[in-house]
Amino acid sequence: MAARAGVSIASASRVLNGIGGSAETVRKVRAAAAEVGYVPNAIARSLQSQRTGLVALAVADIGNPVYVAMMRAIEAVVASSGRQLLVHATGGEVASETALLRRLANRYVDGMIVSPIRITDEHLDAIVVSPVPVVVVGQLPADAPVDNVRTDSRSGVALAVDHLLAAGRQRIGFVNGPLDTVPGAARDAGFRAALTSHGIPVDERLIEVGDFQYAAGRAAAARLLARADPDALLCANDLIAVGALHALLTEERRVPQDVALVGMDDTELAQMAFPQLSSVSLGSATRGRRAAELLLERIADPDLPPRREHVAPSLAVRASSDLAGTASRAGMRIEQGGRAPEPSTQGRRR
Amino acid sequence: MAARAGVSIASASRVLNGIGGSAETVRKVRAAAAEVGYVPNAIARSLQSQRTGLVALAVADIGNPVYVAMMRAIEAVVASSGRQLLVHATGGEVASETALLRRLANRYVDGMIVSPIRITDEHLDAIVVSPVPVVVVGQLPADAPVDNVRTDSRSGVALAVDHLLAAGRQRIGFVNGPLDTVPGAARDAGFRAALTSHGIPVDERLIEVGDFQYAAGRAAAARLLARADPDALLCANDLIAVGALHALLTEERRVPQDVALVGMDDTELAQMAFPQLSSVSLGSATRGRRAAELLLERIADPDLPPRREHVAPSLAVRASSDLAGTASRAGMRIEQGGRAPEPSTQGRRR
Repeated sequence: MAARAGVSIASASRVLNGIGGSAETVRKVRAAAAEVGYVPNAIARSLQSQRTGLVALAVADIGNPVYVAMMRAIEAVVASSGRQLLVHATGGEVASETALLRRLANRYVDGMIVSPIRITDEHLDAIVVSPVPVVVVGQLPADAPVDNVRTDSRSGVALAVDHLLAAGRQRIGFVNGPLDTVPGAARDAGFRAALTSHGIPVDERLIEVGDFQYAAGRAAAARLLARADPDALLCANDLIAVGALHALLTEERRVPQDVALVGMDDTELAQMAFPQLSSVSLGSATRGRRAAELLLERIADPDLPPRREHVAPSLAVRASSDLAGTASRAGMRIEQGGRAPEPSTQGRRR
Repeated sequence: MAARAGVSIASASRVLNGIGGSAETVRKVRAAAAEVGYVPNAIARSLQSQRTGLVALAVADIGNPVYVAMMRAIEAVVASSGRQLLVHATGGEVASETALLRRLANRYVDGMIVSPIRITDEHLDAIVVSPVPVVVVGQLPADAPVDNVRTDSRSGVALAVDHLLAAGRQRIGFVNGPLDTVPGAARDAGFRAALTSHGIPVDERLIEVGDFQYAAGRAAAARLLARADPDALLCANDLIAVGALHALLTEERRVPQDVALVGMDDTELAQMAFPQLSSVSLGSATRGRRAAELLLERIADPDLPPRREHVAPSLAVRASSDLAGTASRAGMRIEQGGRAPEPSTQGRRR
C-alpha cells in the first residue's frame, strides 16, 4: 500500500495509525487504502489488543460543580495512564445509566466509573455481567461484588449541625433535595439523627424539600423563611446554599449575623459566594481520584477481590457561619471525629 | 454458539450485541463465546457499518459554565439522533487538541465538535485530513473549508460599553483574560474600538489582564481598584465578573451605585450572584445547538459544501448595572443593532 501511495512504509504506517503525516501524504495513503479495501481503523487493531485507550465516566449532571471537581480528579489519573477520558451525562435517569452499562458489552472503553444518584437492581445486574471493569462512586448494597468508593453524607450533616449548635444557634433550618434520591434520603436521615443526638426535637416547619439546583433551592429557602424563623440554614448542596443566600439577602437578612448558612459538597461555588460559604466537603476530588486508581488497578489485574473505600467528610468553615470570628480569612477545616480547627488548604488555595 | 451455551439463537444474539439478557444467560453465552474464540465486540461489527453511534465534543475546561451551557445544548441534539455524546477536556492545550483530532483517523466516533481557545495551522491540518466530520465552534481563517459556528465577541463588548455610557458612566474599567487567546485578543480590541467610537481616549490604568478564572479575576480587579477609580467594570467572562464582585464588596463599594458591573457569556453564574450580574450573551447554547445540527447534517451528507454560521451577541441587563431601574426584576435584553429593551426570557426562566 505504501508503494501504491508512493510514500515510505514508515509514512504509510504513521498515517494508518493516526499519528501523523502531512496533509498530502495522508491523502495519498488514504486513497491507496481505499483502493485496496484497507480499513484505516484503530478499532480493527483493538480486536487484537482488546484495549481502546479510553475510560468512561458517567455522571448525572455535567453542570453540577461537585461532578466537575470529581471529573477533573479522574481525568488527571486517567491521563497519567496514557488513556483518554470520555464523559457521559446521564441526566440521572436509571434507563440511561443502565443502557450505558449494558453497552459495555461492546467493549467500547477499557472501563467505566459511574456515579448514579440512585442504585437499582438493574444497575447491579448490568455491572456484574460487564466484560470490562466498572467502579461505582456512591452507596451500594453491602454484599455487591463491585469496586466502590463512598463517603458518609449522614456524618457530614452531623458535622454541620454540631458546628451550628456549638456556635449557639438554636433553630436550624434544613433545605434538602428530593427524598427519593440516595443523597436526599441520607441527608434527611442525617439531619434528624444529628438533632436527636443533641436532644433537640425535629420541627417540621424548619425542613423544606426542593431540588439539588440553584433556582429550586432559592424557592425552597424562600418558602421556609415565609413560615419559620431559623437562625441557621443547612443546605443539602452548594447550589441550594447559593439559592438560599440569594433568598436571605433579598429579604435583607444578614449572613451570618441573622442567619448562619452552611452548604454541602464544598465546591468552587462556596468560595465564589459573598460572603464565602461554609460547606461540608464530601471529598469529591478524593473520591474521583481513588475511583480512577481502583479502575486502573482492576484493568491491570482483573482477578483482584472487590474493594471498598471510604472517604471521610470534613467541614470547611468560612464567613457565612463564622459567628465567633475564629476562622481566619483562609477558613478552617473541621474533620470528622475531631473538633480541633486546622487551616483549610482549600481555603488557602485562593 | 447458541447451542454450546444452551440458549436460543435470539438470546445469544441479544447478548452478543449488548442489548440484554439475564445475568445467567449472559454468563453462558460469554463462556461459549470465549470457547470458540468469538469476540463479542460491537467494534468488530462497526468495521462493516463504519458507524460508532458516538459523537465527541472537545472543550478546554469542562468546569467553565459557558461550556456547560454549550454541552447541554449539544447533548440534546446528539441524543435526539440516537447517538451518545463523549466529552473530552483538553485543558486548552494545542498539543492535546490536535492529538484528539489526529485520533479521528481511527474513526472512534462518527464526528467531532471542537471549541479551541486558539486555532493553529496544526488544528486546521488535522481537521482537513480527518476521515470523519469536524465542526469548529469559534473563529477560523476566512478560507478554511470547515463547518463553523461563530459569534462576534467584539460587537458583544460594544453592546456593554454602549449600555454603560448610556447609563452615564464615564470611567469604564476592563478586566480581561490572556491577550494571546482568541477571546482575550478579540475582547481587548472590541473594548478599545468601542471607546474610540464614542470619542473616549483609552486609559491604560483602567485595563487589567488576568486569566479567565474566578480567583485570577478577583485578583486582577483588586489590582485595578488599587490604582484607578472606575465607576463601571466590564469583565471578559462571568467567572472574572464574580471575582470582581467579590473584590468590590470586600472594599465595600456598592454595586451598581458606586461601580456598575457587567460580565460576559451570560452563564448561570450571572444569575446566581447577588446582585444578579448583567452579562453579554455570546449565544453559547445556540452555538452548541447549531454546531450539533451542522455535524449531523454533515454525517448524513458528506458532500455538503462547508457552512459558516454566525450567532449575534445580546446583552442581558440585570441589577448589577441597572442604574436607571428600567430593567424589571426579570431583567431586559438588548440585541445587537437595536437599543429597544425587551424582556429577557433567560431572566424570566428563574
